[in-house]
Amino acid sequence: MGIVLSRIAAALGDSWTVRQVDIRIDGETITEISESSLPAGPDDTRVDGTGKLAIPGLVNAHTHVPMVLFRGIADDLPLAQWLSEKLWPAEKKLTADDVYWGSLLGLAEMIRSGTTAISDMYFFVDAIAKAVAQSGMRARLSYGIIASSLDERGKEELRRAREVIERFRADGLISAAVAPHAIYTCGKEVWREAIELAHRYEVPIHTHLAETRAEVADCYVRYRMSPVRLLDQWGAFTGPVIAAHCVHVAPDDIEILGERQVNVVHCPKSNAKLGSGIAPIARLHAAGVNVALGTDGAASNNRLDMFGELRFAALMAKAVSQDPALVSAKDALKMASTAGARALGFAGEIAIGKQADMAIVDLSQLETVPAYDPLSALVYAAGREAVSDVIVNGKFLMRDRVLTTIDEDQVKYEVSRRANRYKS
Amino acid sequence: MGIVLSRIAAALGDSWTVRQVDIRIDGETITEISESSLPAGPDDTRVDGTGKLAIPGLVNAHTHVPMVLFRGIADDLPLAQWLSEKLWPAEKKLTADDVYWGSLLGLAEMIRSGTTAISDMYFFVDAIAKAVAQSGMRARLSYGIIASSLDERGKEELRRAREVIERFRADGLISAAVAPHAIYTCGKEVWREAIELAHRYEVPIHTHLAETRAEVADCYVRYRMSPVRLLDQWGAFTGPVIAAHCVHVAPDDIEILGERQVNVVHCPKSNAKLGSGIAPIARLHAAGVNVALGTDGAASNNRLDMFGELRFAALMAKAVSQDPALVSAKDALKMASTAGARALGFAGEIAIGKQADMAIVDLSQLETVPAYDPLSALVYAAGREAVSDVIVNGKFLMRDRVLTTIDEDQVKYEVSRRANRYKS
Repeated sequence: MGIVLSRIAAALGDSWTVRQVDIRIDGETITEISESSLPAGPDDTRVDGTGKLAIPGLVNAHTHVPMVLFRGIADDLPLAQWLSEKLWPAEKKLTADDVYWGSLLGLAEMIRSGTTAISDMYFFVDAIAKAVAQSGMRARLSYGIIASSLDERGKEELRRAREVIERFRADGLISAAVAPHAIYTCGKEVWREAIELAHRYEVPIHTHLAETRAEVADCYVRYRMSPVRLLDQWGAFTGPVIAAHCVHVAPDDIEILGERQVNVVHCPKSNAKLGSGIAPIARLHAAGVNVALGTDGAASNNRLDMFGELRFAALMAKAVSQDPALVSAKDALKMASTAGARALGFAGEIAIGKQADMAIVDLSQLETVPAYDPLSALVYAAGREAVSDVIVNGKFLMRDRVLTTIDEDQVKYEVSRRANRYKS
Repeated sequence: MGIVLSRIAAALGDSWTVRQVDIRIDGETITEISESSLPAGPDDTRVDGTGKLAIPGLVNAHTHVPMVLFRGIADDLPLAQWLSEKLWPAEKKLTADDVYWGSLLGLAEMIRSGTTAISDMYFFVDAIAKAVAQSGMRARLSYGIIASSLDERGKEELRRAREVIERFRADGLISAAVAPHAIYTCGKEVWREAIELAHRYEVPIHTHLAETRAEVADCYVRYRMSPVRLLDQWGAFTGPVIAAHCVHVAPDDIEILGERQVNVVHCPKSNAKLGSGIAPIARLHAAGVNVALGTDGAASNNRLDMFGELRFAALMAKAVSQDPALVSAKDALKMASTAGARALGFAGEIAIGKQADMAIVDLSQLETVPAYDPLSALVYAAGREAVSDVIVNGKFLMRDRVLTTIDEDQVKYEVSRRANRYKS
């Protein structure tokens, strides 16, 4: 009942050293890695690794998976118009069923592109959880709290957030976070309660931080300090934090993020597409910040494709700095997997005793020939279509390019017909 | 013997208006576009366009196709080290046969990603032309002249350039250009002769221009002016010019490029990967410059993928300007096709009487569901793997994802075994 990957190139351990090995998976765990051939029993699945590369599964550390329903509903618009005229009216029409089918399509797309875990923030979290459970992926889910004060609405928002945490904090592959949406959508009291929830249930905080210039400017007007310093003063960084974006951070903000060990999630394509700007990841790295990668929602990307995201992150960093040595292929891959796993609270490497979450990529296609260096081929030449197999917790979610947990035709049909309702 | 595309969404004319139509192709030409159903005779190929979108073929307006042999041979290195320690030693080992097989693989990759025409600059041009002719693509080929003066070597370089022009200036789908490599690799006399060649044979000049900061700085030291102004003074802009890169151009350079109607080829991924910087395409557009797109060679990209390139160009422009409305989906597609066609000297639109060069994209895949706007889906969500069919000059080069002119397994084998010789 185990899996044997035979004669496969694999990026091993924390160093991502690529070696040709045999890998044995039993149950949820990697149990053997050997330079010599490992036997496969009659009940084992044997995968021929010729021409393939195994890497730790990619981790989409900031997304709103149901927003795949709004993929391409409005592009090339100023942010305020995009939100108020297009996104918010569409979101008002959402039903739990829509969210379930949208999530399933988004998760299918992510599995197809080698993603094994997500950190999500949205509403109708039960519907998202149902889709995640069916998909077999690992996930940290959260309810996005939006409330300016602790009035009735504010209390209701916090109650919903607590429900999600109580339901999912230790539910197999699904875990929880508490998600005050941002400093501009949640007031100080709401943040205080959210921080307390995080401490009480020992779950991380997941939030948006310093995404746009306007957010920073408004924060200075209102609080006379930057969003990063504000959250630090409010005590938000006293436990684990997953902070998406951090595009507009000054040197002293970066220092705080490093000192408080905040996990930053770089979302370069979403930041680009919405015209938010370019996060200073080289400076964040230099300050010792753990920088993970995320696609954000499909309304602002519009691909839930971590391969595209990590390539974009590497190229963008080189372009902006005019330094081709910055963010190497290995750096980009580690951001997209190991750093994300660390932010979400699990291992994320191919090593004996670790959970078996991995993506297998076929490097024998036209587009990756020749392949002088497999990690470089993966980052700069391969696309998500090169992913052939995905394993999460010792189970195949995709085998030879066929999804094992999701019926693609059905989700395409369900999402397409629902999408008609959102056109306006 | 014609082709009928039935019930297909198509981006029509210069405006790229998407309409559901039937399209008839006879010989090399689009002969009918109709809102009602067109009959197909027994000898015609009928394509069911359900769920598909036809666009003008993409034009890779600056590339060095044989460099696919060096894809990934060296990444994440400073430019000088990359060139002197890796690229140049590898190029010294090249044979005409290597160039032929490398070109064929590069062309196959481009066809797979919807590219129908290229503008190439390299050496062993006969071998490249042989591969291009076999592939069925449209191409403007040139020999890259590198010579500081009109000594023996300089004369020999110009003789080779002239040979290429005489051989290919009117050879079916292949045409020629004269390609003095750059201002820092060709001296004033060599440029003068090259310009004269271009005038005499009525072919465009294809060159690299203002690619790096160092090029501009050195030009100021040597000539007390910018590379753009220098070429203008040397008379290089008195006929059609295809100028790759133009990353480091000042406002007065941009004015010159606009006034002289220089065709600029934006190569955003190559410029990013080599740390050269980001070309100011919004300002070039504002000055009325025709901005096409190119992948550059696969040693500095490493994908010959115009879909990736146009998405990167759009996202990068929005990120740098912090303006999401800049470079819309349609703008990006036009850069990648119509603008490139104009730079190369042909039509590049789907209209009656125009040559039948087009890419057909399947938008029914998981990754492009839902598709509220087909052009947006193409730019922001689709990948090159969504291209199902490619037609050049009325002939299928790919039909239902199968290449019709190139044996993929053979080129993969030939390129892989040759690549071993370049490792060092």
